[in-house]
Amino acid sequence: MLSPQDSLWMANALQLAERGLYSTSPNPRVGCVLVRDDQIVGEGWHQYAGEPHAEVHALRAAGEAARGATVYVTLEPCSHQGRTPPCADALISAGVIRVVAAMQDPNPQVAGKGIEKLRAAGIEVECGLMEGAARELNIGFFSRMTRGFPWLRSKIAMSLDGRTALNNGRSQWITGAAARQDVQHWRGRSCAVLTGIGTVRADDPRLNVREPKLGASKIKAIRQPLRAVLDSQLQLPLTARILCDGNVVIYTATPDLQKMAALEKLGARVIVLPDVCGRVDLIAMLRDLAASGCNEVLVEAGSILNGALLQAGLVDELVLYVAPQLLGDMARGMAQLGELTMLDQRVELEWQDVRNVGKDLRIVARVKHA
Amino acid sequence: MLSPQDSLWMANALQLAERGLYSTSPNPRVGCVLVRDDQIVGEGWHQYAGEPHAEVHALRAAGEAARGATVYVTLEPCSHQGRTPPCADALISAGVIRVVAAMQDPNPQVAGKGIEKLRAAGIEVECGLMEGAARELNIGFFSRMTRGFPWLRSKIAMSLDGRTALNNGRSQWITGAAARQDVQHWRGRSCAVLTGIGTVRADDPRLNVREPKLGASKIKAIRQPLRAVLDSQLQLPLTARILCDGNVVIYTATPDLQKMAALEKLGARVIVLPDVCGRVDLIAMLRDLAASGCNEVLVEAGSILNGALLQAGLVDELVLYVAPQLLGDMARGMAQLGELTMLDQRVELEWQDVRNVGKDLRIVARVKHA
Repeated sequence: MLSPQDSLWMANALQLAERGLYSTSPNPRVGCVLVRDDQIVGEGWHQYAGEPHAEVHALRAAGEAARGATVYVTLEPCSHQGRTPPCADALISAGVIRVVAAMQDPNPQVAGKGIEKLRAAGIEVECGLMEGAARELNIGFFSRMTRGFPWLRSKIAMSLDGRTALNNGRSQWITGAAARQDVQHWRGRSCAVLTGIGTVRADDPRLNVREPKLGASKIKAIRQPLRAVLDSQLQLPLTARILCDGNVVIYTATPDLQKMAALEKLGARVIVLPDVCGRVDLIAMLRDLAASGCNEVLVEAGSILNGALLQAGLVDELVLYVAPQLLGDMARGMAQLGELTMLDQRVELEWQDVRNVGKDLRIVARVKHA
Repeated sequence: MLSPQDSLWMANALQLAERGLYSTSPNPRVGCVLVRDDQIVGEGWHQYAGEPHAEVHALRAAGEAARGATVYVTLEPCSHQGRTPPCADALISAGVIRVVAAMQDPNPQVAGKGIEKLRAAGIEVECGLMEGAARELNIGFFSRMTRGFPWLRSKIAMSLDGRTALNNGRSQWITGAAARQDVQHWRGRSCAVLTGIGTVRADDPRLNVREPKLGASKIKAIRQPLRAVLDSQLQLPLTARILCDGNVVIYTATPDLQKMAALEKLGARVIVLPDVCGRVDLIAMLRDLAASGCNEVLVEAGSILNGALLQAGLVDELVLYVAPQLLGDMARGMAQLGELTMLDQRVELEWQDVRNVGKDLRIVARVKHA
């Protein structure tokens, strides 16, 4: 049986889990609170992959007080030996009497086995409390585990009439400083930032996180996202700024061995994934990113790549920074979807969040997958 | 001296004024509260042009209790003989001792003379309390009196990427039923609805108010807006549904006398206003609408007329119903502004209001006039 008090402790555990927003991936963000006699006796959250899980931090903090405690944890405790021993075993040894989990672990290696193990040891287990919030916090991990794809989020800065640049390409500072600052948050929580060769040639971006204060009060250091470039014909200039900081992967359809060697010498990985039309196979690319442990991927690209990903049904979420201005119908659109002839070919969305960011409006919408 | 209590009574007067949203024009919406010994002794609002002003309704309700009262009125009392006698005289005769007005009357026939008259009679007068709210309520009247133009509000239904129809013209039901219902409110408060011949030929709209419940609890009947059609070459079909209900004006650049006679026989007025290029002179058209007493004009048109009005700096406000969908960059844009080559040629806006209307987002933004 769950009580209102249980929700308060779980909310506490969720807040702890959220501290891992910029550091925990490729692992899920998890928080844990141990409660005995209506008092917190230990709490913890998972900070970096390879380091102890949230439950272990909480048990260490509680020490002997863990005996007889209730455990609030935002994800089912693991049952398998990974880089750290199974948390279910640790909880059983510590003598906790009840475990409340927000959701079952979507990892097929766990998927209910942790709960079974706890129950087999005589521990009372409840699962599903505040599951919606817990799933949102790990939407990328959930996507990778259940679909084999990262959660693909596309960030676009545009005018109110949906234009990203003038016809002659001019686009600098359509949106304001606060919006550009806000993008750092999305980059910081992403495992990878994906762009296209067109954007690299036009803007020469670095696409790294440059906000030192991001999560600074809570973590030692953010994890810089992998930068991924879709470059079918392997045209990336060796002088591109994106190559400066390492941690770059280039997806191409052109096995130009000499260019590949030059790029690899600069520290980039080059992966050749042609589709039948001689372009990069988008699905194979995203499966590769998922296989590399990418939970959330942020797309920062132009209308060609955005359009291709949207048309293929691969975009899950749009983060639009909308500037209070009109550029008119000769200006460049946000997504090349080809010519639709029937309204049911449109991309259908669901509003997620609308708010002001500085002088701009930020609209987050999710794609309704058929 | 103003007190916090004064603001409460003025808020009351503003609420009364707002009852005239769908009936009072071409006159301003005005509310009035008479207070003596912290009690309302009379209240009124201006319902229809030609009928008594708000102050007169309030004085009648108060009777002898008006003597020694304070008057809260959302617009300076009139000083001139119009269709009704001057309110300033009526207030003086009734023996009120203090008048608090939200704003001076922008009507050049009044413009402070009402206040002077009251002061000359020994009445204490304060002006400017809650002026912002009072001005918003009469933004069209204010525009007409001070600029000689109506307040031009353009309503556009579009997808999140700023598209109003597919390239082949398909556009039915981009936005939802709640948005279409909400448009009735904007039509109802407008003195005229303006459209272009392209929209008439494509959609054959009536553009009248079809919401019987609009303001029904407060007024006898809404005032149907004038319907204005911009039709440079006088191509309006005599069978157009917009002609069915009368109260139509057609602005053209083509003095086709036979067609004009046929249209006039159907009850429409035809006004020939060519500019130097042989199209309708937009500025002359809006001045004519203002001269006919139009305070607020709602534009319900396509991208050509919207673009022309925006480029000419004549649009004051955009009311956008944004559907949660993308139609892609081959679809039709919301405003034809020609090709901009510099970002400073863009139309700059200010956010006014953002909210959900059914499944759609409604964004109201105002044009920043240079």
